[in-house]
Amino acid sequence: MTTRPFRDCRRLAVESRQKMFDDLIQKKELPEEGWSEQLIEQFVVYLANMDTNNRIDLTPIGAGEREGRVVAPLVARLHMNMSHGIGRSGNLTECQPKAQGSSMMAQIANEFALQTIKLMGVRSCKGALIVPMATGMALSLCLSSWRRSRPEAKYVIFSRIDQKSCFKSILFAGYEPLIVDLIRDDHTDSLQTNIDGIRRVIRDRPEQILAVMTTTSCFAPRAPDDLVEVAKLCSEFGLFHLVNNAYGLQSPKCVEFLEEARQEGRIDAFVQSTDKNFLIPVGGAVIGTFKKSKAEAIAQFYPGRASAIPSRDFAITCLYLGKSGWHALLQQREKLFEVMKTKLRSFAETINEKVLDIPENLISLAMSLKTIPSEKQTLFGSILFSRGITGARVVPSTAAKKSIEGYEFVNFGSHTSEQHDGYLNIACGIGMTAAEVDELFTRLQDNYKRFLRKEALGNENQVANDAGTEK
Amino acid sequence: MTTRPFRDCRRLAVESRQKMFDDLIQKKELPEEGWSEQLIEQFVVYLANMDTNNRIDLTPIGAGEREGRVVAPLVARLHMNMSHGIGRSGNLTECQPKAQGSSMMAQIANEFALQTIKLMGVRSCKGALIVPMATGMALSLCLSSWRRSRPEAKYVIFSRIDQKSCFKSILFAGYEPLIVDLIRDDHTDSLQTNIDGIRRVIRDRPEQILAVMTTTSCFAPRAPDDLVEVAKLCSEFGLFHLVNNAYGLQSPKCVEFLEEARQEGRIDAFVQSTDKNFLIPVGGAVIGTFKKSKAEAIAQFYPGRASAIPSRDFAITCLYLGKSGWHALLQQREKLFEVMKTKLRSFAETINEKVLDIPENLISLAMSLKTIPSEKQTLFGSILFSRGITGARVVPSTAAKKSIEGYEFVNFGSHTSEQHDGYLNIACGIGMTAAEVDELFTRLQDNYKRFLRKEALGNENQVANDAGTEK
Amino acid sequence: MTTRPFRDCRRLAVESRQKMFDDLIQKKELPEEGWSEQLIEQFVVYLANMDTNNRIDLTPIGAGEREGRVVAPLVARLHMNMSHGIGRSGNLTECQPKAQGSSMMAQIANEFALQTIKLMGVRSCKGALIVPMATGMALSLCLSSWRRSRPEAKYVIFSRIDQKSCFKSILFAGYEPLIVDLIRDDHTDSLQTNIDGIRRVIRDRPEQILAVMTTTSCFAPRAPDDLVEVAKLCSEFGLFHLVNNAYGLQSPKCVEFLEEARQEGRIDAFVQSTDKNFLIPVGGAVIGTFKKSKAEAIAQFYPGRASAIPSRDFAITCLYLGKSGWHALLQQREKLFEVMKTKLRSFAETINEKVLDIPENLISLAMSLKTIPSEKQTLFGSILFSRGITGARVVPSTAAKKSIEGYEFVNFGSHTSEQHDGYLNIACGIGMTAAEVDELFTRLQDNYKRFLRKEALGNENQVANDAGTEK
Amino acid sequence: MTTRPFRDCRRLAVESRQKMFDDLIQKKELPEEGWSEQLIEQFVVYLANMDTNNRIDLTPIGAGEREGRVVAPLVARLHMNMSHGIGRSGNLTECQPKAQGSSMMAQIANEFALQTIKLMGVRSCKGALIVPMATGMALSLCLSSWRRSRPEAKYVIFSRIDQKSCFKSILFAGYEPLIVDLIRDDHTDSLQTNIDGIRRVIRDRPEQILAVMTTTSCFAPRAPDDLVEVAKLCSEFGLFHLVNNAYGLQSPKCVEFLEEARQEGRIDAFVQSTDKNFLIPVGGAVIGTFKKSKAEAIAQFYPGRASAIPSRDFAITCLYLGKSGWHALLQQREKLFEVMKTKLRSFAETINEKVLDIPENLISLAMSLKTIPSEKQTLFGSILFSRGITGARVVPSTAAKKSIEGYEFVNFGSHTSEQHDGYLNIACGIGMTAAEVDELFTRLQDNYKRFLRKEALGNENQVANDAGTEK
Repeated sequence: MTTRPFRDCRRLAVESRQKMFDDLIQKKELPEEGWSEQLIEQFVVYLANMDTNNRIDLTPIGAGEREGRVVAPLVARLHMNMSHGIGRSGNLTECQPKAQGSSMMAQIANEFALQTIKLMGVRSCKGALIVPMATGMALSLCLSSWRRSRPEAKYVIFSRIDQKSCFKSILFAGYEPLIVDLIRDDHTDSLQTNIDGIRRVIRDRPEQILAVMTTTSCFAPRAPDDLVEVAKLCSEFGLFHLVNNAYGLQSPKCVEFLEEARQEGRIDAFVQSTDKNFLIPVGGAVIGTFKKSKAEAIAQFYPGRASAIPSRDFAITCLYLGKSGWHALLQQREKLFEVMKTKLRSFAETINEKVLDIPENLISLAMSLKTIPSEKQTLFGSILFSRGITGARVVPSTAAKKSIEGYEFVNFGSHTSEQHDGYLNIACGIGMTAAEVDELFTRLQDNYKRFLRKEALGNENQVANDAGTEK
Repeated sequence: MTTRPFRDCRRLAVESRQKMFDDLIQKKELPEEGWSEQLIEQFVVYLANMDTNNRIDLTPIGAGEREGRVVAPLVARLHMNMSHGIGRSGNLTECQPKAQGSSMMAQIANEFALQTIKLMGVRSCKGALIVPMATGMALSLCLSSWRRSRPEAKYVIFSRIDQKSCFKSILFAGYEPLIVDLIRDDHTDSLQTNIDGIRRVIRDRPEQILAVMTTTSCFAPRAPDDLVEVAKLCSEFGLFHLVNNAYGLQSPKCVEFLEEARQEGRIDAFVQSTDKNFLIPVGGAVIGTFKKSKAEAIAQFYPGRASAIPSRDFAITCLYLGKSGWHALLQQREKLFEVMKTKLRSFAETINEKVLDIPENLISLAMSLKTIPSEKQTLFGSILFSRGITGARVVPSTAAKKSIEGYEFVNFGSHTSEQHDGYLNIACGIGMTAAEVDELFTRLQDNYKRFLRKEALGNENQVANDAGTEK
Repeated sequence: MTTRPFRDCRRLAVESRQKMFDDLIQKKELPEEGWSEQLIEQFVVYLANMDTNNRIDLTPIGAGEREGRVVAPLVARLHMNMSHGIGRSGNLTECQPKAQGSSMMAQIANEFALQTIKLMGVRSCKGALIVPMATGMALSLCLSSWRRSRPEAKYVIFSRIDQKSCFKSILFAGYEPLIVDLIRDDHTDSLQTNIDGIRRVIRDRPEQILAVMTTTSCFAPRAPDDLVEVAKLCSEFGLFHLVNNAYGLQSPKCVEFLEEARQEGRIDAFVQSTDKNFLIPVGGAVIGTFKKSKAEAIAQFYPGRASAIPSRDFAITCLYLGKSGWHALLQQREKLFEVMKTKLRSFAETINEKVLDIPENLISLAMSLKTIPSEKQTLFGSILFSRGITGARVVPSTAAKKSIEGYEFVNFGSHTSEQHDGYLNIACGIGMTAAEVDELFTRLQDNYKRFLRKEALGNENQVANDAGTEK
Repeated sequence: MTTRPFRDCRRLAVESRQKMFDDLIQKKELPEEGWSEQLIEQFVVYLANMDTNNRIDLTPIGAGEREGRVVAPLVARLHMNMSHGIGRSGNLTECQPKAQGSSMMAQIANEFALQTIKLMGVRSCKGALIVPMATGMALSLCLSSWRRSRPEAKYVIFSRIDQKSCFKSILFAGYEPLIVDLIRDDHTDSLQTNIDGIRRVIRDRPEQILAVMTTTSCFAPRAPDDLVEVAKLCSEFGLFHLVNNAYGLQSPKCVEFLEEARQEGRIDAFVQSTDKNFLIPVGGAVIGTFKKSKAEAIAQFYPGRASAIPSRDFAITCLYLGKSGWHALLQQREKLFEVMKTKLRSFAETINEKVLDIPENLISLAMSLKTIPSEKQTLFGSILFSRGITGARVVPSTAAKKSIEGYEFVNFGSHTSEQHDGYLNIACGIGMTAAEVDELFTRLQDNYKRFLRKEALGNENQVANDAGTEK
């Protein structure tokens, strides 16, 4: 081996990567095309090497109480030798001198989050913060961080959505929820925001109210809240407006509402789940804001360090997909949602049911279930689950009340106290494939038929065999 | 290959592992001796296979909005194909039907946490809950979960400790801190709990106080709080008592105080960091309680699902070490702390300084720094950091006030408003090695000498070269 | 968590995998569709667990000289804890009692090799043996194993192919090559087998000849050897016929010749490279035979144990692709070869060169290079390499002789002593993508133009800048 | 994050590693202390990045027939993206322009092999070549590469050792073995080289003999061959001397013999297994020579490319252990061998057997088995195997002949045709632990007792239950 070519090849191999990595560190730009897994892995190693515990020029001596020591090699590998987490005791986005690589990764992830949110349609977004807690806790964090601005406030207005986490997030933050029920739309089957109701509640005691919490993404027949009107109200009364946008980034409608509401009124933060929108494991959320300083204030309020995992996973996923990968996934989902809707309609027709008309909900669909007796509907749901269909929900009507931390809800799960005939929900989430949609309907038809047949024969026990329940 | 021996070997290989894994799943007992990395990995795979997204008998069809889809293969591998997190929207310890393997792992981790806390000396511990948030947030969770029991309460008494996370945790939960300054012990150099001060604050408005927050592990010259007396007070006035035991499990003294306080009075929860005590990456905390139901109530208050990572890392680490591994690490730390103390004393002697006498702080040591002018002390700290000594802190005295979310502290970092000559903190944390302690003193001596010499020559700029700051 | 559903899910998760794995072990059938990476990994672990060094029911005690101990954890991981290799001292396919999992993997890999060879078109193939050595050594193994059948033989007839490994394989086995030059076809540009020449050489001393070695896959303008006529000759004279089919399995023509030759005459073994046909790293070859016993006899002749890696990689790759994956890759290659040929022809036309007409070579193409002076052709080749085009070869004509282990070749690399104008070879190998073919021509055109322009200006030094050489 | 410190930390992290890696590449020196697994992994990645298929500055276009394409991601990972193997078609040590990283790794591995062989005691060693084939094939390679020097030669003298691979290696290379039986030493129990016998065989037809093959490491009661006298003979008659030193590097005696024989006579190559001496998986051997050119000549004779795995594993293991790690392992083995000998002697005494006296065999021990009837000895061996003791061998005497490729051996396995009472072999190989030795004797005693008891009762069937056989 002559020396010159080897040097050249070393130079090409080493320097081209360094340039790529340093560019990314400096510019923090989501690449147009995704990177190979191999290159991403090398980039994470590149960053991890900058944390003091991985220093090799000088053996690091840990003379403190928190030294990023990891004893199990498997754990170290699963963290790629990054162990310091992110943030400092005062601020989630502050750089840790001990862990400059981890800190840099968190910064990159936040920048990627901002760029991805914009790419997904919230073009006016200015601040994005990945927090290592799921949506509920992230909503709490927002509410709590606003406390000092409205010291008299004791309440948060809650436009009803029957999902425990967001409801409980209000309690966690130390506020009391004022629940405003939805109203049924006259022309469609939608359950919609009761704007007048909210206005009435505010008027009663505006100074005691911290914020209004709205929700975009939800199970049909609930429609996304009317963000525009709520934003106007919040603007009028000087209230915070917090949007639970759990999996709304993938819906063109939710995204459009966010943009419009920002123009017409006030949104202080909108929160989305990392697993539901960004295809990473459960554990994180992204808080988006329309002013950079608003995200910073929330980061600063956070008490202490935190796991680096959601930031790491988010950064890796963005590098893996690139802008083009995100676009492709979004387009595929929109297309498949239409396929799913069409297929559900024709299935409904064949069995004498109907697909509810909720024009603004572009993720979740609901089909009536009046052909299955009310008391058997839950069993039918369990069977679907045991047949490998996860996420499909059967919602029977019930007059019973459910209590959550002392607050009572009638017909919990239906987003309304109204009684109905029961329905089946299915959703088309990002990452779903055409093959899955096809197979979904094959199993749905098959199991519906068998269910009716067995019901007719009365041998329910057999039907129930090995069925579990999933909420 | 004849068939019989192959079958035998398959049987031995497959069945012996299944038996081992099923035993663990059923009994959830921390093994006496650690397992091999290979076996642990297989066990995690065994559990992951039970999550619906890894099902192979039937292709799983995801028809919901949250289907554990992971798009980047590197992320999937780093999570070992567990993507559903833990908990359900209502409860951190509830089993997810979609993710029975992940749920089981979380349960095992909680059982291991309980057993490990007991093994570390808190023998009366009855409940342990791993939460995927660092100490500060875990303290908030405890406080918030108690709100309904004392609806009138607005304050949490804070026995001063100059660490931002725990202070901010009170604000996050929606309470106001009432700071009680420490008092200097007459006989030693310890900063100790001002029991009379706390009593006075309580007496003023007992019904408005939710809890007293005490801290065990801390930087010298602060001593662990007097848990026993505070526990008695809480018992007397019916207040909650929350102990910030961040890295106290490794200190026999802190552990002893917990046990004693439980007998004499009241402790509702004590919170410890997973990274500082259990050698896993930053991101989790363990909440310990002396009644099982108390841990359950906290789990139930949590809003939503959460990351499975801290539970997974905790379980892996426990399997890797076994009981014997934990014992060995604890003993090694206690021994090394004595070595460190002796070495620091003899170093102090040679340079005309003294090691402060804080008999109850068995983790952190403080050496006076009067031979370095007050205004140069921070620089000396930076130099130590740049020489690879992380975690050593130089604390100069300052009359300036620091404001945290509107609350002012004089001499923040010293745990007291009193002025002093400045001091150096070093700590002996779990996992530290004898070689590290040796090298620590080599570098300390060397850099101290060079610092004084350069100082004498006046060329500070050179000294400052490439030094960063670490708090 | 209730107990029953957990048991069910454990049963589904564990038993469905075991069934799948045991079915594969028993039937050794290449699956129709590929498996997920995750499942394949679990299968390899399943097998590895059966090797004694991974036994957990009883600590294995190694009291011998060869115990599969691996000291570096990284090495252990890269071998997935399989360390015993394959075979026993007497036989490559024998089962090692110490390593039943590794042995099983080797058996499965051999079965997969047989099925894949058949799927690729050699339908009459009856035996396949993966050997952990590249093509050259595998050819040696075949020749050597036949020695006892023809004890008087000293020679192997070698239908000239200018590739060192196969030539040297004859010497390794202890035979002398008798080189028979090719002849130029009258109607096309092909270099073809000199059947008359071979017959003459045999006639001289039939009893002293062990075998004829032919080659199928080769660089144009050499055509695949005329296997059919050679097979007839070998049959007539009772000689062994060994086919160097290095990357011929992907060519429908080579495969057709093998089948036809088997029917009309004699082929004792045909050898193919694992990396060139099967997309695994360099290091193995597959020996195919038309009688099962012939493969077994070769396996039995092998002296000692051997690396399990090529077998492992082969098995993994087959499981990953399944039959459908292999079919898709083969079809894609055939299609792309036609695209490449068309593009090369139109490029040749624009620059006044021509694509040589070698109708039977369906992998490698040759384009004349008379527009580049003979002495600059090598430089042009280097430039292509430095521009990231690997594998393209420029073959200038030369009157010089090259000596290989004492045997002289005129114009080595051209497969013929005839002089020519120089040509460029490119090939379309399995796994090549449409994007690669496109980019190949973009770079080819671009660099050809720049080369001519710079040549015209005479600044060759600049041209040569950072060019390496690749053979 | 201010920019300067980040740059500094990047510089430290990146440059310190690069310097370390480039130093290693340039000097190829086995480090004194081992590296961390993490650092080794990064070094392999550093090299892999230099192979063209991993190039990122320019998309590599593969226009040849061998492009290092790997389709299964699991395979790519297990090879750390190195897929080109080592060597070129003419030479195992030649650098591949396409794969400069892989080539560099092979070079480093060869240098490490040389340094390790010297460290292990063969201080005059000058050449070392890692070949990706086990010991038997490596012996063939040596013999074959010498063919041209002695074109008349047809025979290789074989000082009997009952191990198939080395015997068959002679046949593979195309030579006939002339077997010279051992002789029993008068003073000890050793089976020793029959120097006079060898001399007689040579004298008959010196020009027809290529080489003498001797063996050092072997099962007792065979002693290492008398290398010194054979070396003298080879020198006297101008024959090659090939030493099968399979696992002899760990024996101070074998190493001493090699050095002495080199001084007094001739050794052309000595071959050792990588798995038996160097704790890596089966698949490679190291050929050592006392002249650098001798190793080079062998490398050059090799027909074609080859697997990079044994070189990679060897390099990784050396980096992991460093010189100090090798020294520690060697010392531990020597110490444990003495422990084993003492324990075996006292066990033998208690059961009326004796440990054979073979003073020069410092690895394998033999204990007589006259207390077990000849026809039950094999069963006893099987039982030991089924009780997890691998590698222990029971050698009964037999008058039967075993044929290996047409050559007949009486009492194969005993290294001699003499009849004896049967014996048990155990060995202390590198990497064995004190705990293993202890447990070995516990199980040995226990199973011996149970065997005798059951034998007395006559229920052999029960004894035989689940016992396999291992040779």
